[in-house]
Amino acid sequence: RMDASAMWLYRWYYSSSCQRILSFTIFLILSLAFVETPSSLTSSSDVRFRIAAWEPPCGLTESVELLCLLVFVADVSVKSYLVGWSQYRNNPWLLAYFVVLGVSLTDWIVSLSLICWETVRIRRLLRPFFLLQNSSMMKKTLKCIRSTLPQMASVALLLALHLCLFTTFGMLLFTGEKEDQLRKERLTYFRNLPEALTSLLVLLTTANNPDVMMPAYSKNRAYSIFFILFTVIGSLFLMNLLTAIIYNQFRGYLMLSLQTSLFRRRLGTRAAYEVLTSLEGGKEDHLQAAGVRPETFLRALQKIHMASHCRQAIMQKVLSQGDRLLSADEFQKLFNEVDKRVIKEHPPRPEYRSPFLRSAQFLFGHYYFDYLGTLIALGNLVSICVFLVLDSDLVPDDRDDFLLGILNAVFILYYQVEMLLKIFALGLWGYLSHLSNLFDGFLTLVLLGLEIATLSVYRFPHSGWKPHTVGPMSLWNMTRLVNILIVFRFLRIIPNIKMMAVVANTLLDLVRNMRAFAGILVVVYYIFAIIGINLFQGVVVAPPGNGSLAPNGSESCGSFEQLEYWSNNFDDFAAALITLWNVMVVNNWQVFMDAYRRYSGPWSKLYFVAWWLVSSVIWVNLFLALILENFIHKWDRRDQHPHSLGTPEASYH
Amino acid sequence: RMDASAMWLYRWYYSSSCQRILSFTIFLILSLAFVETPSSLTSSSDVRFRIAAWEPPCGLTESVELLCLLVFVADVSVKSYLVGWSQYRNNPWLLAYFVVLGVSLTDWIVSLSLICWETVRIRRLLRPFFLLQNSSMMKKTLKCIRSTLPQMASVALLLALHLCLFTTFGMLLFTGEKEDQLRKERLTYFRNLPEALTSLLVLLTTANNPDVMMPAYSKNRAYSIFFILFTVIGSLFLMNLLTAIIYNQFRGYLMLSLQTSLFRRRLGTRAAYEVLTSLEGGKEDHLQAAGVRPETFLRALQKIHMASHCRQAIMQKVLSQGDRLLSADEFQKLFNEVDKRVIKEHPPRPEYRSPFLRSAQFLFGHYYFDYLGTLIALGNLVSICVFLVLDSDLVPDDRDDFLLGILNAVFILYYQVEMLLKIFALGLWGYLSHLSNLFDGFLTLVLLGLEIATLSVYRFPHSGWKPHTVGPMSLWNMTRLVNILIVFRFLRIIPNIKMMAVVANTLLDLVRNMRAFAGILVVVYYIFAIIGINLFQGVVVAPPGNGSLAPNGSESCGSFEQLEYWSNNFDDFAAALITLWNVMVVNNWQVFMDAYRRYSGPWSKLYFVAWWLVSSVIWVNLFLALILENFIHKWDRRDQHPHSLGTPEASYH
Repeated sequence: RMDASAMWLYRWYYSSSCQRILSFTIFLILSLAFVETPSSLTSSSDVRFRIAAWEPPCGLTESVELLCLLVFVADVSVKSYLVGWSQYRNNPWLLAYFVVLGVSLTDWIVSLSLICWETVRIRRLLRPFFLLQNSSMMKKTLKCIRSTLPQMASVALLLALHLCLFTTFGMLLFTGEKEDQLRKERLTYFRNLPEALTSLLVLLTTANNPDVMMPAYSKNRAYSIFFILFTVIGSLFLMNLLTAIIYNQFRGYLMLSLQTSLFRRRLGTRAAYEVLTSLEGGKEDHLQAAGVRPETFLRALQKIHMASHCRQAIMQKVLSQGDRLLSADEFQKLFNEVDKRVIKEHPPRPEYRSPFLRSAQFLFGHYYFDYLGTLIALGNLVSICVFLVLDSDLVPDDRDDFLLGILNAVFILYYQVEMLLKIFALGLWGYLSHLSNLFDGFLTLVLLGLEIATLSVYRFPHSGWKPHTVGPMSLWNMTRLVNILIVFRFLRIIPNIKMMAVVANTLLDLVRNMRAFAGILVVVYYIFAIIGINLFQGVVVAPPGNGSLAPNGSESCGSFEQLEYWSNNFDDFAAALITLWNVMVVNNWQVFMDAYRRYSGPWSKLYFVAWWLVSSVIWVNLFLALILENFIHKWDRRDQHPHSLGTPEASYH
Repeated sequence: RMDASAMWLYRWYYSSSCQRILSFTIFLILSLAFVETPSSLTSSSDVRFRIAAWEPPCGLTESVELLCLLVFVADVSVKSYLVGWSQYRNNPWLLAYFVVLGVSLTDWIVSLSLICWETVRIRRLLRPFFLLQNSSMMKKTLKCIRSTLPQMASVALLLALHLCLFTTFGMLLFTGEKEDQLRKERLTYFRNLPEALTSLLVLLTTANNPDVMMPAYSKNRAYSIFFILFTVIGSLFLMNLLTAIIYNQFRGYLMLSLQTSLFRRRLGTRAAYEVLTSLEGGKEDHLQAAGVRPETFLRALQKIHMASHCRQAIMQKVLSQGDRLLSADEFQKLFNEVDKRVIKEHPPRPEYRSPFLRSAQFLFGHYYFDYLGTLIALGNLVSICVFLVLDSDLVPDDRDDFLLGILNAVFILYYQVEMLLKIFALGLWGYLSHLSNLFDGFLTLVLLGLEIATLSVYRFPHSGWKPHTVGPMSLWNMTRLVNILIVFRFLRIIPNIKMMAVVANTLLDLVRNMRAFAGILVVVYYIFAIIGINLFQGVVVAPPGNGSLAPNGSESCGSFEQLEYWSNNFDDFAAALITLWNVMVVNNWQVFMDAYRRYSGPWSKLYFVAWWLVSSVIWVNLFLALILENFIHKWDRRDQHPHSLGTPEASYH
């Protein structure tokens, strides 16, 4: 649609405030899961210590949800109006959006009519869709993942073949009954086909590595060959092949998205040029000398939303070209100015009259003074560490914090003086214009506040001075914790070391480019956590008696109960997230599988294996691919312009 | 040197038999470690069950070693003679070779004069050098690794910073004394600075993931943020960045080595062309029309060692060109024939007179017959699995193998008949010319032998037939094991599935290209195993009493003793290798660290951390880089020639 009202709606819809409201609504509806009926509002998720959580009354979260859904209804209607009917039918995302909203609203009505006593809430599962459909980058990433699936399936087939082969082989190998060690191997890991399969699947993730081979290996060295061969083929070759496949698909992914956005901008500027030219043409009836007059362009420029320094740069460029018509090429080149990152100019230093003040200003404004500050911070850190080592053998209640209290006060005093001197040398605005100073100043003020509070509560340090713990963490400990944040001062040294600079820059770029991946992670976590809550809520029960503190000797070693994994359950959303995280990290995930098999049934294994596949196999590999892609992209650019390391570079959005 | 005797020596030295002797000598001197004084010739390495191993008398291994060293002396003298003195001084590898040999021989003399009672043998540590210096590819890889070290050091610095920051932070966070859970956290993982550092270092490898956060997390959910943040930054970001750095260095590594070898061949052929031209020039005094006459070339060709099919192809090409002189370009092009992989021609099928025999030949030579065989093999596998499932609840001694015995005999009979029919259809040589048939035939014959042996020992199957176990594995079990090898028949289907073909081809190429990496792995394992033996030999002692079978309840869960890791020691070379493997796989490596800290001293941690860095961080990442490189190289080539998937492709050596 190209009429004026649609245009106005388009502008309004894509205005930053409107988009921000949409993002906030998505955030709100997603975070409802923490408050809803199995609510996460307890300090502990341990089934032994947990107190009953506050449950929101029926209708509270539901009304918030209805508000969010209504915002989405408005969103989908605006979007489909803007897209138009013919486009609408061909846009599966928009169709799905419509369906999801319909289902959610129906589910909401059913839920309220049952006074919140329904067993399954479908609309919870559908919520992540709102996050997904709102980001074009995430849709693109999903498409990319989907296109790797056939190849991944072939590797998965190889993996399955490998697993089956070794399972049957292992079953035949470990039939020994006479020797104790072999019987132990058979009974523990190869009792029957499903158990053998599980043992080897876990070995594929190396989570039970030395244990699974120990009984047989201590009987005969040769048995270790079976397990090592399995690990080498499965874990080193096939699993890494999966990484390679995913990386191969995502190679050039960043480059492509960069090119696409460049191409769109080119197209946009070209269209703007054509429009401006036709305006001119209509007015003055030039026939051949097509072009845009600088004044027209400048007038148009005033109406566009853009960063003021970019506009300044473009205007200067236009004025420097004189009064002749701009050709299409020149018009394009003007917008290259947008890519150039402006070097931030710091406000001028205050000028003092007295020569003494001037020399003091020179002294404290010099970067050697920064180095001195870093050195003092290092001393601070060392002092904290030394006291940690000295105190390590004492029970916390017996520690004497007199000396440390004095030292800390001195350091905090130094930071105050340093801040004041810097403000004196650079001026207040000059001081604040440095990002690092901003951080330092904030930290220094927080430290000052904490120190004053500490001194007022515990009095001045004296021999045997020992601040008591009040609440979860004493004021004094808090002071020390904040003190440790001083470490971040050292990060400022990094840009001075060439190698570190590349690495640190890559990390920063990565964080910038990984929003889509993080979004997909959120979606996956959300869906699995909700499914997990539906499947396993209340399944893990506290052990009988108050056996919480004395470890119960009757539990076998390495079991869920002996390891006291009681907090890893699916009883509320926050606990489910942490449980899923622990399974994603893969170590000891067989303990979870085994426990939920016992508490819930053998089919729970499928849930954990599915989560392992999605999170650890696919997502972690995706993440690795992203890091590789970012780093190599960066590296290639650095190789092309070996001298541009310190100069401003274009960043992609 | 370019005189005739040097030339002859050069040819002789680089002849395949001479190089093979050298490789065998290297293999021999490396494998001596299994036999030498802490000898690995016991069936078990478990300190509880181990019987005293046979120790070779003084002088036996030493004399073998002397022989090997003498071969190396000959090798180094020939090499330095061929290289010449001026080159020799600039070749650090050759110099090092000389020094290593000198040290080894001195050490050998000292060892013999002390009648093998010396405490440290330096020459054992130096042995892997012989493997290293013999492979130019390994030297190149080492150089590549060395050039990544500066970048890796910068990431390591970031990692160390990250570790230190979180350690001090954790030490301050977990000072709780009042709550039981927090005290447990402090006492178990954050008791003092070194222990906190170790806990977090292990968490970096995720080997103690849920355990380390459990006590604090079950007190308060918020504590999990500390651990999750640590894992995300350390394990996901920084560790993967290491992978990226290594991969970046090895990108184009294969391509480069391919180009280098191509360039060398071009240079060689060009030189040959010049020589042949100058010969012609001397004989017939052509002035301008430089070139090589085909006859001269063919005569020269006869003298060269090369694969006969290549020579055939080149000769045909030459003869097809007629009698005119070959120009330099044409000369080069001739050798492109070497790259073309020959499609192996199978011998013609035997021709039978009778129409019945002909139709039978068509039937059994058809590829549908192959499919039938695969189907039968599948049935065989299924029957084995079904019986495994049925028998899983029975103790091995109660199983009735009557039906399975009958079934197995039937299947083995079928394989025999299939083999004979195929030989009938294709002829004996036609049958053997297929690689897959060779494998099938071999398997079938082995199965036949085993079945006959089984029947002769246990008689024909009858109800309640149950072959007894004799020795470590019964003949009957062996038959079933070999039967499972039938699974490899399914691998033949793989080339028919397009996706699988790429993946499987990549895996095969990988194995071909990874010799250098495997060599470096051998070197690293060897050095660390020898150091480990010197440091920790005999340190782990068997528990008092015959507590081997009944698990001792007094050991705390998760300790070396409770997990019965007694076989993981450094008492002989083979055991050390397996121990190192288990640490390399990283899971539960904190158990090893803890045990050796207790048995040997806190400094043993350094050894394990060093091994973790070298094996798990550097080598595993190297391996991943190799897989990525291979796969992407292959993929790029496939993209360039989308139709050449099934056609022969050049392989690189």
